[in-house]
Amino acid sequence: MARTASLSGFPEWLPEERLVELHVLDTLRKVFELHGFASIETRAVETVGQLLRKGEIDKEVYGLSRLQDDEADPEAAKAGKSDPHALALHFDLTVPFARYVVENAGYLAFPFRRYQIQKVWRGERPQEGRAREFTQADIDVVGDGELPFRYDVEIALVIAEALSALPIPDFRLRINNRKLAEGFYRGIGLDDTAGVLRSIDKLEKIGPAKVAELLKTEVGASSDQAQLALQLAGIRTEDTSFVAQVRALGVTNDLLEEGLNELEQVIEAAVQRAPGKVLADLSIARGLDYYTGTVVETVLVGHEQLGSICSGGRYDALASKGNRKFPGVGLSIGVTRLVSRILSQDLAKASRSVPTAVLVALTNDDSWGAAQDVAAQLRSRGIATEVAAKADKFGKQIKFADRRGIPFVWFTDDDGRHQVKDIQSGDQTDADPAQWTPPSEDLHVQVTTAAALPA
Amino acid sequence: MARTASLSGFPEWLPEERLVELHVLDTLRKVFELHGFASIETRAVETVGQLLRKGEIDKEVYGLSRLQDDEADPEAAKAGKSDPHALALHFDLTVPFARYVVENAGYLAFPFRRYQIQKVWRGERPQEGRAREFTQADIDVVGDGELPFRYDVEIALVIAEALSALPIPDFRLRINNRKLAEGFYRGIGLDDTAGVLRSIDKLEKIGPAKVAELLKTEVGASSDQAQLALQLAGIRTEDTSFVAQVRALGVTNDLLEEGLNELEQVIEAAVQRAPGKVLADLSIARGLDYYTGTVVETVLVGHEQLGSICSGGRYDALASKGNRKFPGVGLSIGVTRLVSRILSQDLAKASRSVPTAVLVALTNDDSWGAAQDVAAQLRSRGIATEVAAKADKFGKQIKFADRRGIPFVWFTDDDGRHQVKDIQSGDQTDADPAQWTPPSEDLHVQVTTAAALPA
Repeated sequence: MARTASLSGFPEWLPEERLVELHVLDTLRKVFELHGFASIETRAVETVGQLLRKGEIDKEVYGLSRLQDDEADPEAAKAGKSDPHALALHFDLTVPFARYVVENAGYLAFPFRRYQIQKVWRGERPQEGRAREFTQADIDVVGDGELPFRYDVEIALVIAEALSALPIPDFRLRINNRKLAEGFYRGIGLDDTAGVLRSIDKLEKIGPAKVAELLKTEVGASSDQAQLALQLAGIRTEDTSFVAQVRALGVTNDLLEEGLNELEQVIEAAVQRAPGKVLADLSIARGLDYYTGTVVETVLVGHEQLGSICSGGRYDALASKGNRKFPGVGLSIGVTRLVSRILSQDLAKASRSVPTAVLVALTNDDSWGAAQDVAAQLRSRGIATEVAAKADKFGKQIKFADRRGIPFVWFTDDDGRHQVKDIQSGDQTDADPAQWTPPSEDLHVQVTTAAALPA
Repeated sequence: MARTASLSGFPEWLPEERLVELHVLDTLRKVFELHGFASIETRAVETVGQLLRKGEIDKEVYGLSRLQDDEADPEAAKAGKSDPHALALHFDLTVPFARYVVENAGYLAFPFRRYQIQKVWRGERPQEGRAREFTQADIDVVGDGELPFRYDVEIALVIAEALSALPIPDFRLRINNRKLAEGFYRGIGLDDTAGVLRSIDKLEKIGPAKVAELLKTEVGASSDQAQLALQLAGIRTEDTSFVAQVRALGVTNDLLEEGLNELEQVIEAAVQRAPGKVLADLSIARGLDYYTGTVVETVLVGHEQLGSICSGGRYDALASKGNRKFPGVGLSIGVTRLVSRILSQDLAKASRSVPTAVLVALTNDDSWGAAQDVAAQLRSRGIATEVAAKADKFGKQIKFADRRGIPFVWFTDDDGRHQVKDIQSGDQTDADPAQWTPPSEDLHVQVTTAAALPA
């Protein structure tokens, strides 16, 4: 990690770093599939009209145009940009997924559970934890017409399990509920709930005093109302005691009750099934996103300034098709943000930089065919094997393996005697290509967290 | 596959189709890693200057611009397009890999073996087998200064093994050698070897008579020269007998000899290690690509009109950095082209459309927690399991599983007695959540070729 990206905001990994990323991706996929989520991918490209349906984010979007077209007719290119049919790169996986669901509704079985791991692009100013090209790993469950609340509970538990399986520091899912917040604001007489949320969302950045000012100027709150909204946002519990704390504020509202009940279900299940990983945090607002119930952000403990590594929530209408509504609940893991942090702070490491476990050395240039036979036998048992390309001196071939991080070198002498050398220990022993297997820790690349690394 | 892409040239798969694609990708990755290739990914974006270094392909390239920028200043956007620092999407994985090697040369161990599986984009007119967004799977070996020819042999064998592991019809790697062709052309007095190659490349499209005309008009060949060039291109053998056939044409040239010797090595090894999969085909020219030795195209037998599904070859200088040259040899599989054909012709199928093997039914709404416990036990043994969200009637829950293609439904009655129902057979038997495992063919999704499917 001495390197910096040659194009700012577009990180690329060295092979040993990519192994850490692959381990993260494989682990997420495994957990998602064990929970019955099906893989889909959507095209990288959407129409501008589709991407900007929710407005306000157009400055982040990369538009596409064929180079040849532009040179032929610059005016056409310009027109293309404001044309809703023009193409642009997707900036998240939720908007494309919503389109996919609508387009393929007739072919999907609902509730439809999918995971989607893909690159997304945003033309923002790059900074730590914020790239222009990055990988997201999303899970969502989407229903046709209705979607039981239980999926909100399940999604949180699946994500807690997935994150727990990664080589990352401890984390906390901070969960709130829009119904709870909006019901509370209405209950105290603040009806511009979106405005209140927008102000509360700035709490971590500007502090309670300034938020109180904002609430007064932006949504016309009284001092008492601002105080109550801030008191609500100050509630943070690891168990369901938040319910009593909210009730103690003396506000009654049906939507508030519904939200309290929903959040209680999530926290109750989490206390039991993901103890210590989840908390009710009534300050979570999730900015301008169009959530309608559960909202989630996730911090890495000790890396809070990195921002949320996993966010999402419930949409009453993830998508709609005429009168038909598709409610959804989902969470999105910022894989690149996580992997960047793992690599920049050496939180985890790959045991070697190549998949290869064995290099088959050449005794002489004619032995390449025999060496390939040995390699094929080893590969048939799942042992990643390379064959040397030249019959250099053995010392040089061993050095070649060592430099590439290959743990074992195989030798076959002219009499057909096979030996395998453990480069680390220097031990060289007789071995049968039809039988020999490396120790399990050397069979595949291992990715281990810093804590588990030898000092 | 009743559907067509909602955006022409940008195919998207349904979950059961994606499972076929995933199987293809997983299989390729497994074979590549078994042969010691390390994974890398490069950013989707290159500078226009980098992409157009070799010229002549700019009309295929998608340029990028931030929407907001363009609206602010259309002239800036226009300037950006002809600016070599402007960004565009990569159209293959070779150009980005070459840049990556140069940028990271100090961190890589050479010969560097990598595989790279990513999407690429080309703004071409979409047609069968040609999409605007598609996935390529590349392997390359690149050396620092020199790269033994043996890697050309190895790359061909690895690809033959990888393609053999896929659920696709029989295939043939058609291999030629640029040195052989160019040496031969020089030997008969045609020095514009690029011009000859360009004409020969049209052989399949326009036939030998028209190619002979082209050779006369384009490179000034005599009838005899044109005839000899066509005779060379007509040689196609499954063994090394092409060497004698070329010699019988009576042309002598050092470069020709070098090419004959190289191609002979490839074919000799292939006859032994990939019998029936490889042939010497002296008509293969590979268009305008800058290969310098081995060149490869691959056809699916019975699907020749689909075009090449795997192409590549040897570059003397894949990349260079000052005086330092990085020769490479590599092949690129057109994954989307293959998968599109598999799906459109039902050549292979996934055994179900979801990863889930078991649905745990709910006896009543309070049993969700107990059902999650059963699911966790099953998942701990690698059995993909979902829990029902609602305590519908059992018939409805079974139907839910059936509709989603989940093969087993798990029931736990109020007395804690566990039973599992095989939906296909209807059998329902007692089962222990700590012990029970589905038959291996139901544990994971299976992708089988049409030939292996039950009639």
